Amino acid sequence: DPRLKIFSLNSNKPLAQKIADAVGVELGKSEVRQFSDGEIQINIEQSIRGGHVYLIQSTSNPVNDHLMELLIMIDALKRASAKTINVVMPYYGYARQDRKARSREPITAKLVANMLETAGATRVLTLDLHAAQIQGFFDIPVDHLMAAPLLADYFIEHGYEGDDVVVVSPDHGGVSRARKLAEHLKSPIAIIDKRRPKANVAEVMNIIGEVKGKKCVIIDDMIDTAGTITLAAEALIEKGATEVIACCTHPVLSGPAIERIDQSSIEKLIITDSILLPEEKHSDKIETVSVGELIGDAIKRIHENKPVSPLFETKKG
Amino acid sequence: DPRLKIFSLNSNKPLAQKIADAVGVELGKSEVRQFSDGEIQINIEQSIRGGHVYLIQSTSNPVNDHLMELLIMIDALKRASAKTINVVMPYYGYARQDRKARSREPITAKLVANMLETAGATRVLTLDLHAAQIQGFFDIPVDHLMAAPLLADYFIEHGYEGDDVVVVSPDHGGVSRARKLAEHLKSPIAIIDKRRPKANVAEVMNIIGEVKGKKCVIIDDMIDTAGTITLAAEALIEKGATEVIACCTHPVLSGPAIERIDQSSIEKLIITDSILLPEEKHSDKIETVSVGELIGDAIKRIHENKPVSPLFETKKG
Ligand SMILES: Nc1ncnc2c1ncn2[C@@H]1O[C@H](COP(=O)(O)O)[C@@H](O)[C@H]1O
Ligand SMILES: Nc1ncnc2c1ncn2[C@@H]1O[C@H](COP(=O)(O)O)[C@@H](O)[C@H]1O
Repeated sequence: DPRLKIFSLNSNKPLAQKIADAVGVELGKSEVRQFSDGEIQINIEQSIRGGHVYLIQSTSNPVNDHLMELLIMIDALKRASAKTINVVMPYYGYARQDRKARSREPITAKLVANMLETAGATRVLTLDLHAAQIQGFFDIPVDHLMAAPLLADYFIEHGYEGDDVVVVSPDHGGVSRARKLAEHLKSPIAIIDKRRPKANVAEVMNIIGEVKGKKCVIIDDMIDTAGTITLAAEALIEKGATEVIACCTHPVLSGPAIERIDQSSIEKLIITDSILLPEEKHSDKIETVSVGELIGDAIKRIHENKPVSPLFETKKG
Repeated sequence: DPRLKIFSLNSNKPLAQKIADAVGVELGKSEVRQFSDGEIQINIEQSIRGGHVYLIQSTSNPVNDHLMELLIMIDALKRASAKTINVVMPYYGYARQDRKARSREPITAKLVANMLETAGATRVLTLDLHAAQIQGFFDIPVDHLMAAPLLADYFIEHGYEGDDVVVVSPDHGGVSRARKLAEHLKSPIAIIDKRRPKANVAEVMNIIGEVKGKKCVIIDDMIDTAGTITLAAEALIEKGATEVIACCTHPVLSGPAIERIDQSSIEKLIITDSILLPEEKHSDKIETVSVGELIGDAIKRIHENKPVSPLFETKKG
């Protein structure tokens, strides 16, 4: 269908290319640059009148620039008479600011939702939201994909399944994600009962569940400074785990993250390409599973008015 | 009135302090920082429940960060039960993207207006908009101040008035601004009839009006890369002007601006502090007139439900 058009902004062009390949279309012709004073300049170099546009942008660091690129592009598409504007945000920035944890805090995840709608988005497709409740911040349809089946495929392929393996959630908020992966692997789960004294600082407390003599697979939605996950790994080893592997959907990996992972007892970190890893963050411990096909398949299903839910199954599980 | 509260974000704290001093209140206690991954973190350290909050932020470079700071702070204030949220934007970033000049361009100045309203702004106070039409992008009250009377005071104080002086508009869009300054100085005006081949590149064409043997005062709303204004200065000298001084409200001064000004025949550049000039952009040619009192007076008048228009007169003129 020539009305299906996929455009990429600047945050993750390799993933956008994979998505376009999976859908079987060429990426739309557009360029996003900066004027001399840092303001964003957008050039859409082909007609999109009447088109169904899918706009690929992860609002990863630099989050404010990536978000403004997205909003300005939506505005331009709307004024250029796109029929639908489907925002594909593999990584949803500001998702952790999803509630007032203290007085006078903003709820930036909701502000972002409002701004996307105000700009003119007609649908949102995203992946492993930090909290599923963020779907409710929108008054337009939201499709919420999960990377767990892809990660499960990776682990099954590499022999991690069954009773030898324990899937570990690094906090109580991630238990349902861990349970999903554990179901695919037919393994039990364990939960780390941690307390975090303040932002970007983590402390491991206690392990609920049996890990002695087992291979542990820690799963989280995102790894930021890697404080939580590396302390979790040490705690698991201390309790007799024979091996610790970590995985996450969103490799934020800010500040000391890479150093911490390299120095930790985590043997391998499996990530997805929802966020593009810059050169300086590469590590021998990291392996990447692409979400390009998953998202491409979802776009095809949306465009054909089919449900997205069959994508929640593994291929090998 | 203890309900009048002034908060500053990060773009221009010295100006915010001057505004607070002019109003006679202390700046509100708040801090805006970044999390490790670059996301904005806001702390408002005092109650603002029921307050009339004036939020000072110029959306200057880095424009996307400054804009997001502003939007997130508005969201936080709204959720903390501020009674009114008055956004004071001495410099309105993205103002030049105020229309579709070409196909498929965004109208980012309108997007910014929509986002401010969506976030929760109840009033906007700004200074010398690139186009006065931007007021109409808002459905909330907009107060639009002008720096021309302040600049006029400066010129009168320094002996620039009467028939010796010509006030020059660097383009047709700035004629009414030039006429306003010329009225205060009791001087004639001239207009530069230029064509600009592309963004951030300027070309001077022709001068409408008499400049021979006169001191020229070029006035513009903003000076960005200073291409236009330095070429205008050369053209004026070529036509027999004895001296060229330039002035503007908004010293964007990006890229080669300072170098161009230093090397040009512009003898002095009078700017306001609507945008904070970083250390590396200082030049012996630049003198600054503060808009702190002007904005402070406007805030007092707004808070007392008085019209802002008396501020449009000079003190000395
Ligand atoms: N970018 C960020 N980096 C670190 N902490 C954050 C970030 N954004 C929000 N937070 C804080 O993280 C907490 C929410 O994280 P969580 O408890 O994992 O949902 C809240 O207290 C937020 O203030
Ligand atoms: N930040 C910017 N720097 C340079 N040019 C810009 C910027 N923003 C918008 N423009 C362009 O400047 C033109 C409007 O400027 P003007 O004709 O002076 O109103 C439009 O063609 C815009 O595309």
